[in-house]
Parts: sequence; C-alpha cells; structure tokens
Amino acid sequence: MRWHDQHFAPPSGIITLLTDFGNADGFVGAMKGVILGIYPTARIVDLTHEIAPRNIAAGAFLLQAHFKYFPRGTVHVAVVDPGVGTPRKALAGYWREHYYVAPDNGLLDFCAEDETCVAVKLTRLEFWRQEVSHTFHGRDIFAPVAAHLAAGVALLQLGEPISFNKHGHAKPCYVKGDALIGEIVYADRFGNLISNLAQIDFKNFVGNGSFVIQCEHVRINAITPAYGYARPGELIALINSFDCLELGVAQGNAQTSLAIPLGTPMIIKRGS
Amino acid sequence: MRWHDQHFAPPSGIITLLTDFGNADGFVGAMKGVILGIYPTARIVDLTHEIAPRNIAAGAFLLQAHFKYFPRGTVHVAVVDPGVGTPRKALAGYWREHYYVAPDNGLLDFCAEDETCVAVKLTRLEFWRQEVSHTFHGRDIFAPVAAHLAAGVALLQLGEPISFNKHGHAKPCYVKGDALIGEIVYADRFGNLISNLAQIDFKNFVGNGSFVIQCEHVRINAITPAYGYARPGELIALINSFDCLELGVAQGNAQTSLAIPLGTPMIIKRGS
Amino acid sequence: MRWHDQHFAPPSGIITLLTDFGNADGFVGAMKGVILGIYPTARIVDLTHEIAPRNIAAGAFLLQAHFKYFPRGTVHVAVVDPGVGTPRKALAGYWREHYYVAPDNGLLDFCAEDETCVAVKLTRLEFWRQEVSHTFHGRDIFAPVAAHLAAGVALLQLGEPISFNKHGHAKPCYVKGDALIGEIVYADRFGNLISNLAQIDFKNFVGNGSFVIQCEHVRINAITPAYGYARPGELIALINSFDCLELGVAQGNAQTSLAIPLGTPMIIKRGS
Repeated sequence: MRWHDQHFAPPSGIITLLTDFGNADGFVGAMKGVILGIYPTARIVDLTHEIAPRNIAAGAFLLQAHFKYFPRGTVHVAVVDPGVGTPRKALAGYWREHYYVAPDNGLLDFCAEDETCVAVKLTRLEFWRQEVSHTFHGRDIFAPVAAHLAAGVALLQLGEPISFNKHGHAKPCYVKGDALIGEIVYADRFGNLISNLAQIDFKNFVGNGSFVIQCEHVRINAITPAYGYARPGELIALINSFDCLELGVAQGNAQTSLAIPLGTPMIIKRGS
Repeated sequence: MRWHDQHFAPPSGIITLLTDFGNADGFVGAMKGVILGIYPTARIVDLTHEIAPRNIAAGAFLLQAHFKYFPRGTVHVAVVDPGVGTPRKALAGYWREHYYVAPDNGLLDFCAEDETCVAVKLTRLEFWRQEVSHTFHGRDIFAPVAAHLAAGVALLQLGEPISFNKHGHAKPCYVKGDALIGEIVYADRFGNLISNLAQIDFKNFVGNGSFVIQCEHVRINAITPAYGYARPGELIALINSFDCLELGVAQGNAQTSLAIPLGTPMIIKRGS
Repeated sequence: MRWHDQHFAPPSGIITLLTDFGNADGFVGAMKGVILGIYPTARIVDLTHEIAPRNIAAGAFLLQAHFKYFPRGTVHVAVVDPGVGTPRKALAGYWREHYYVAPDNGLLDFCAEDETCVAVKLTRLEFWRQEVSHTFHGRDIFAPVAAHLAAGVALLQLGEPISFNKHGHAKPCYVKGDALIGEIVYADRFGNLISNLAQIDFKNFVGNGSFVIQCEHVRINAITPAYGYARPGELIALINSFDCLELGVAQGNAQTSLAIPLGTPMIIKRGS
C-alpha cells in the first residue's frame, strides 16, 4: 500500500499502554504525566504492565489479542525494550484502523511485512521530550509521540516512511503432513495454556470430523464450550476469548498441574 | 418496591470494575476498550482485579464495602464468573442509588432479596457486543451493558424485571445465646483480619459495658482507636475503615503471625 | 518565601496518587470515588500503590523522582501513613510549581525546610469527608483535600500556614575526605540498584578524570550509556532515567545476583 492511497482513521483520543515496567516503580505514571502535558484530554488505558521483563513475544501476543476491542483510531503504545539507548529504530505505524508506537524489536511482528501496514521511523525530535534519557524512551519518545498522534498530528509528520521486518516473535501455526501444528504461547492468570491455533485455522483443518489435540502427554478429542460445563478439576480444550485454542483445568490451574512449558507444540490430527 | 414507585438516580458517568482477572493479561483493558467505544466520556475506576480466582464471597464483600464512596448514580461492574457460558443469569440492578451489573452468582448477595433493590435479567442483545464469546462475558455483555447504563439507557430497557436470590456469600453476624457471632471474612494487604461484625452491631450488643473478643486462641477486651496507638508488634482489635471489627498487628501482619484462616468465628461476649 | 510573594501555578486538573495500599483491596478505588464526587472531571493517575507497607523513604524517593514529569499545577497525594489516627499533622504544600498532600511524616522530606516550599497544616474540616475514620485518612482527608485543590480552592484556604521539618527519609549524598558517598536507596522491578548519587553530583566530583565506583564487593570504573551496550549478564553502572547512578545486570537482576541490600554505601573515588 502506498501512503497516498491510505485513508487514516481519525484518532479516537484513546491511548493504550503495554509495557514490562510493572506497577511498582512509577515509570508508567511518568509516561502518563508526559502524555497529559501534551494532550490534556487523552483517555489512557493500561493494557498491561506485567509483561515479564524483556519478553517481547508475550507483549506482541497480548497487543494483537486485545487491540481490536478499542475504537478505531486508538493509539497503542508498546514498550518492552531491552535495546533502549542503542541504535535500534523507533516506530509508529497504522494497521487495521489502529495506530501503534513501539521499538522495532518484534513487538509489532503481527503487522510487520504486511502490505496493509504503513509505518514511519521516528525521527522528528520536536515530538519527543526535550531531554531524552538513554534508558527510558517509553517516557521520553514513545509517550510524547503517542500523545501527539492521539491529539491529531499526522503519522507521516512523525518521521520517515519505512518498511519494517518481523523479528520472529509472532509465531503462526502451520500444516505439516497430516497435522496442524501450533504451540503454547501464553499462560494467563488462571493458568490456562493458550496456543497460537486460531479457531478459524482449527475449523478449516478439522471440518466437521473427529480430531485429536496432542500437547506433550495430553490427548483431548473434544472442544468444551465453557469452563462451567466441565467437572471441577477436569482438563479440557476450548476456544477462548482470543478465539484461540487453549487447555485449561476447570476451577483449577492447568499451568501448574500439567507443568507444560511455554513453547510446547500443540498438534491437531484428524480422526480419533 | 414496584418499578413505577422507583425514582432512579441519574447516572454519574462513572463505571467501577471489580474482577478476578488480575492486571497481567489485558482482559481488563479489553473491557475498557469496549466501554469507551460505546460511551467515550466514561470515567472508569478500577476497584480491584485481584480477587482470588473464583472467590465470589471476597468480591461481594469488597463491592459492598466500597460502593458507597462513589457518587450516586455510579455503575458498578462485578465479574467473578466461574459459570460464564452456562445458563446462569446475567443481572443489572439498582440499590441505594447505585447501579450494579454482574452475573447472578452471589456477587450481589448484599442487596439480593432486599425489597429496595430492583433488577433485570439481561436479555436485550442490542446492548451487548455483536459477537459474544463463551468465556468472557465481562467484555462481551457486562462491559457494554454498563456503558449503556452509564450513558443514560434506562435499567428497564436492558432486560426483564426479576427478583434474584442470595447465594450464601454475604454472611451476616448474629446473636446466639449470650454471644454475638461473626467470622473473619477478608484479609487485606496489611494482613489485617477483617470480620463481618459491623460497628453498629458490636455497639448495640455490648453497650457501654466491658466485653471480650474471642477468635480462636485470641482474647482481646478493648478497642484501640488506631494502629498508631499500639506498640510495634502488639495485637489489637479496632474498628476499621469499613466500619467493621478487625484484628491487626501494629507495624506487622496479623494474618501471617496469627495463622487464623478466613472463616474463623469471631465471638463477642459481654463482661470481662 | 512569604505567602504574599508566592505566585501559584493554576491547577492542572490532574491528581496523582502514591500509597502503600496495594491494588487488591479497593482502598484506592474508594479514594477515587471520593475525589470524583467532589471534582467530577479530575484526571487521576496512579503513581504507585505498591510501596512496601509503611516504607516512607521509598514513597518519598519515588515521588521526588517522578513528580516533575507531570504538568505544573498537578496535585500529588502521598499516603504511607503508619501514624494515621494519632495527632501527627496532615499537610498540603506547594514546591516547584506542584502541589502535594500528605501526612507530616517524611514523605515530603525532599521539599521540607526548603524556603521555596510553602505549606499549610490541614485544619479546615469543610474540605474533608463529613465522617472521618481513624484508620483511613487517605480516603477521608487527603483525597477530598486534593480534589478541592485541583478544583481550584486556594492552598491557604485549606489550613494554617506552617513550616514542616525533615524526618530523615530523603538522604543526600555527601563528600567526605577524598570520596563522594551515597547509598543504594531503591531497587526497581528489574532489580536495578538505584543510588542517591545524582548525575550532577557525580560529574562535579569526578570531572573528566578516571574514577572507581565501590559498592560492597563491586568495583566499576566506567559508566555504560545503556543496558543494550552490555553483554548479557554483565554488571554495569549507568546513569538511569532518574538521573541517578545505578548498578544493573544486563538482561538480569542485580538485586538478586549481587545480594546487596538497600542502604549499602556507594562510594566514588577519583583515579583508577
């Protein structure tokens, strides 16, 4: 897609924040102070600040899972940034009617190399804080750029057009031989083990026939509609609220009781 | 109370959220995205998202403790929902000039079976998200209904009038023989052990006379006005900010040092 | 500075909250309910609620580190308050174009005894909640006073002018003999060990010459510009986003791997 073909959604005035900063040290508060100094009526929503330190893949997964529930024109700031202060690029992009601001390190893998995504490398210092630290670009670059975007500055004003590449953090599932192969990519607060197998990929693969879901020692051949339909302690597979296949234990914690680590393959085969 | 006798407080524009979703996975952010898409100027306040998974009693306790500090007409959303996706009902109610949106599972026990509470069973799909998942009604039903309520949609528009029943989660104290009997229902961040003995019930029972508070091996016969009046490490009883009797250790943690579990009876007797 | 010499910044409408209440029990939500009842358009930002219970020094450190990133005229509420309910004073102050509301216990040590700070002892009950508990002045005094301040009530209206003293919680670094001496005052989420040695003090002391940083068994004689320039696992010193000297382990956790406790001296000597 070329820039002049693009019609941008007007900003919604909402800015979401996703970081690995935690909530204890005030770093997120400082980002909000900077945003409100630039755009006083910004409505700021915390997506999460509890990404494990430097876990870019988890940040990319949650951002892709949740952005779509916000109004079009929302600006999503993602900062999991072990390369802060080095020459890694800083990006702002537009994809599926939402805006994104993040370091170029894989946080935006879900829209990288997608021709419907347009992006700039952030270079226009007048939209940054006047003093930029070497260790906190969340506060000094990404927050002020997001505030300006949400307040109406055009994406192209923020820097130079760029194509950016995937960094291998957003892993799609794939068909190999007679199997659909994904993996466990995230465990949520309830210990549910979430895969990268989207409902649509699963249904396209198995159709209306029988199937087996394999994940290490686990074998399951049915999808349960909701946890409330299972016996307490029962291990089930279901389509979760991200529209992905997940394993969970009703009224329990699959992550602790199964001891299946993130990255474990989840394999779908047809038949029983 | 009949519907046509009811004068409803106008919405305050404030929506509070209480869940067991935690703050790590972005679920709460998605609820806020849905709310802001419907009612862009909503002011959203997190009451807590750290209710232990599926602990309906704790959710009901905190909601009842805190709702009254918000302006009248505030909409309180409570989602601790192990039955999500099953036929358990979804409710919106009005009680003491506040609105509530929650599953019918005991979260609203504090106003259930109270003739001053009016409620509807949520049935009007036009106030829900268009796609409703089986596992996340917080995002797909409760958040959008709350947004519509706070934006001015009348409660009765949201569904069918209903009476709903207690589920046994809000436990009142009671007099038995010569004792006033309550129990420890919550432990806060400081390890203070909070009972369901309200100040007014305690004072009505003991009057101006002497008393003994018993809780497992603990015996205390005085109320200390504030922690700052106790010696560091001293175990005291006091009336807390919920107007309930609690046990605490000054500059310490009663929960860990006493090892008294939730549910332990707290018994008041007159005399010394 | 005398009161009539003071030109106060107009309120920004922003209120920040810093407490040791945690996020689990709803105490912070109740404070926000009170604020919004008084000043419905307040924009409230959580600085942190995870100060360790009763750790006044950590609260003072983070408030001083972050307040400056908010617009002038912001009201900062700080409540770490082991003396709540005793006759300890309650304060509102103005310093460096920001407002502060806190108990008089050291949380405001960074501006105490500074002639550019003006303050009042809170005495005007009409700006408090009507009922004031003995255990939760955050909700019953500090939150409503902050709301009135942010809404435009003049500082002097809130109580009687007062000078307040340091309580020994904000520890400056100092020169002794041939050494600049500070200490580790805070560890952040990443395990970085943050000292009270400001960049300006460090540079004034060492000039352009060589130096050695000593902290228990650690000896470092260079400043690394950012974590991304170090090898994974390497222990480095750098100037952090607070403009203070800190020790950190690249892609690791210095606090757990070095086992250096808070309060450990950090000593700078010239030469190599």
